[in-house]
Amino acid sequence: MIDRVLVSIDTHRDASLEGLKAFLRIPSVSTHPPHKPDVLRCAEFVAAEMRRIGLRQVEVTPTTGHPIVYGEWLDAPGKPTVLMYGHYDVQPPEPLDLWDSGPFDPTVRGDNLYARGATDDKGQVWLHLKALDAHLTQTGRLPVNVKLLIEGEEEIGSPHLDAYVRANQDRLRADVVLISDTTMFDYDQPSICYGLRGLVYMEIEVQGPSKDLHSGGFGGSVANPVQALAEILTALKDPDGRITIPGFYDDVQPLTPEERAALAALPFDEDAYRTRLGVSALAGETGYSTLERIWARPTLEVNGILGGFTGEGSKTIIPSRGMAKVSMRLVPDQTPDRIAALFEEHVTRLAPPTVTVTVKRHSSGKPVLTPTDQSAVQAAAHALERGFGKKPVFIREGGSIPVVATFREVLGLPTVLMGFGLPDCDAHAPNEKFNLKNFYRGMVSAAWFYEELGKSSDK
Amino acid sequence: MIDRVLVSIDTHRDASLEGLKAFLRIPSVSTHPPHKPDVLRCAEFVAAEMRRIGLRQVEVTPTTGHPIVYGEWLDAPGKPTVLMYGHYDVQPPEPLDLWDSGPFDPTVRGDNLYARGATDDKGQVWLHLKALDAHLTQTGRLPVNVKLLIEGEEEIGSPHLDAYVRANQDRLRADVVLISDTTMFDYDQPSICYGLRGLVYMEIEVQGPSKDLHSGGFGGSVANPVQALAEILTALKDPDGRITIPGFYDDVQPLTPEERAALAALPFDEDAYRTRLGVSALAGETGYSTLERIWARPTLEVNGILGGFTGEGSKTIIPSRGMAKVSMRLVPDQTPDRIAALFEEHVTRLAPPTVTVTVKRHSSGKPVLTPTDQSAVQAAAHALERGFGKKPVFIREGGSIPVVATFREVLGLPTVLMGFGLPDCDAHAPNEKFNLKNFYRGMVSAAWFYEELGKSSDK
Repeated sequence: MIDRVLVSIDTHRDASLEGLKAFLRIPSVSTHPPHKPDVLRCAEFVAAEMRRIGLRQVEVTPTTGHPIVYGEWLDAPGKPTVLMYGHYDVQPPEPLDLWDSGPFDPTVRGDNLYARGATDDKGQVWLHLKALDAHLTQTGRLPVNVKLLIEGEEEIGSPHLDAYVRANQDRLRADVVLISDTTMFDYDQPSICYGLRGLVYMEIEVQGPSKDLHSGGFGGSVANPVQALAEILTALKDPDGRITIPGFYDDVQPLTPEERAALAALPFDEDAYRTRLGVSALAGETGYSTLERIWARPTLEVNGILGGFTGEGSKTIIPSRGMAKVSMRLVPDQTPDRIAALFEEHVTRLAPPTVTVTVKRHSSGKPVLTPTDQSAVQAAAHALERGFGKKPVFIREGGSIPVVATFREVLGLPTVLMGFGLPDCDAHAPNEKFNLKNFYRGMVSAAWFYEELGKSSDK
Repeated sequence: MIDRVLVSIDTHRDASLEGLKAFLRIPSVSTHPPHKPDVLRCAEFVAAEMRRIGLRQVEVTPTTGHPIVYGEWLDAPGKPTVLMYGHYDVQPPEPLDLWDSGPFDPTVRGDNLYARGATDDKGQVWLHLKALDAHLTQTGRLPVNVKLLIEGEEEIGSPHLDAYVRANQDRLRADVVLISDTTMFDYDQPSICYGLRGLVYMEIEVQGPSKDLHSGGFGGSVANPVQALAEILTALKDPDGRITIPGFYDDVQPLTPEERAALAALPFDEDAYRTRLGVSALAGETGYSTLERIWARPTLEVNGILGGFTGEGSKTIIPSRGMAKVSMRLVPDQTPDRIAALFEEHVTRLAPPTVTVTVKRHSSGKPVLTPTDQSAVQAAAHALERGFGKKPVFIREGGSIPVVATFREVLGLPTVLMGFGLPDCDAHAPNEKFNLKNFYRGMVSAAWFYEELGKSSDK
């Protein structure tokens, strides 16, 4: 049976690509209100495709933001149920002048398909739809039960997904969550991601004098809030790159010697990484390798800073205030609430009495480590080996997918992260691309995943 | 004769105010290239007024930046010649939302006229033009010879004025320079300023990765240029508020015990000052009083900072670069060139090897102390006592008027600084204002100054 599925995938490569291009042409930018009709049109496009390939109970559920698309196929009694999660919204394409072809005019150059959303996440959603399509057209059925949950607000922090999951716990009951929204370790190296960092995003505002002052007339007599802000940011890290917030590391699960050895064994090319970032030297917490730093250690980064006169030329003022956005990536078992509270306490303590400091909190997400010993992970490993002709490596990722924690907490489900992006695919940047060879290998791997999971004893 | 001049000033108060409003309506912002035509229009406005009141040889001299306006009246043989310097350009008005009325829509509220440039320096230039106007219309002559030099680039550091002064030494020959671009010690307290701080204005740019990076995917592995910038700014000062640049204080003239005593004797209300700035506590270099800190000690201030994402909400990036504008106020005998070089060396030394730091220099000006024992200073003291009914105090000012050093060095001229602004006039800030009572008292004092100087034996 699987042979016919694989032949079908192969013979329909061009049609699959054309379908993905149609998906990518819809500018479903969730963060820009003017794109709201496009986002809705994109949801309808996904729902239509679900219906066309034979999924049932297909629904486009409105939220006060963008809709959630759901579809299912449950005619495999006694077999495991997979909840496949993905998203059809995309990041804004700006700055437009840095794109070599239009962000919503999908264009093949060399081995790559260029478009906003090519890998993040439309291309990866599409390869699953095509794998399911091939199973259904060739065999009239699927090897497992499948529920698809494709949302339209991932790029703005999934503000309505938690409520949807809580309100639809029966409908979403499953054995495992599958997500293809992560990257592979390298072009030819299939990968299963077992850890994601969490996030807590803060903003510090330092208020000095009630208005901007002439730096000649008043300079020397009053605390400069931007100077105070710089001193606070400086005090948040020590010379070893460790974060100085008391209690910050209390809940960090230390890396085991086994995991350190496994990470060290990965064929990581530090020089190529450094060159790609365009820096003369890498930097980070003393005592950890680069992969450990980005995958398994918490970090604190200034995401933005603003204060005073920033135009061309010179303006001689003492700014009235300064602002910095600071986010921290978290690792198990840190929690965003506790870290946010510790951050706020520490920044307040660091503030000199000559300025007024306020701290507020933006988005957050919990870190996760998913178990690697369950049968769905084994099914993914077998599937990837079939799709790529090579055993997968187990990796972590520095970014965050907060919904993974929701699935664990609300539905009690583990998640398998089987992604097909590449570290240089420029998700969120101009010229986002999906390597087409990996698009097809991913489709084959997805077809195998459903097949392999159908053979497993989970359920 | 002076009585008729004074009556004329009094009867034309409304007309003088309307004329100033017309002057203030021209948005002559020298630092913004789009305002170039406005700056030119403002120069022509000043020149037209000079011609209207009867000055001669009136010229608008173009530079590669903004023009310089010159006019003269030299029909008082045997009398001293005053070179009156002022500027018709203004600071940028931003942030616009903090103005209660438009910055270029001059508006009287209470005793004050609100507009960008109201005191700095259009209002103070205008009161001299009106004092000269009253003399010329009432007596057909002036008590002294007068040369007016009104430039359009003071707020951007007078980049073309030095060359103009050097090229026009004969034309500008005089006995004394008079400038009204400083503030009074207090509302009812006329003041003669004998010291100005110098300035050197720098910009630090820190370049990290070649483009903004996802803070999840890469956070922890690469130096954050905004963090590096914060650390550099922090390292520029010690906990006592002293500047850490090696050699920075080498050329500072220490305050004499006599001058410290004189400054301490001024009726300075520190609580009122603090309240006016809107801060809970003052701050500055340990071991010095507030007046010493702002008048007689060098300082370093961050004037602006920018890097990364600064919009609403959150964007999880490691910024590619960060920028800070940093200026230092200098006191005799510090020189801008030496301090700029020391700053550049020190910042370069502080820069970690993981980022690229570049330092560039904007405007600069030398600090000055002017002699207080010359007859023009006595004329100013008498004139202020006539205008305000109270003897002036001798003060210094924290700001900079770099051209004072040029007049001394190129023309060999002392400068009398007789200013009518107030410490809370918000020059360079939103809601800049000129106290109208002092506008008129200043006009009377200016009329008296020319009268008194005509009686002096200088020449």
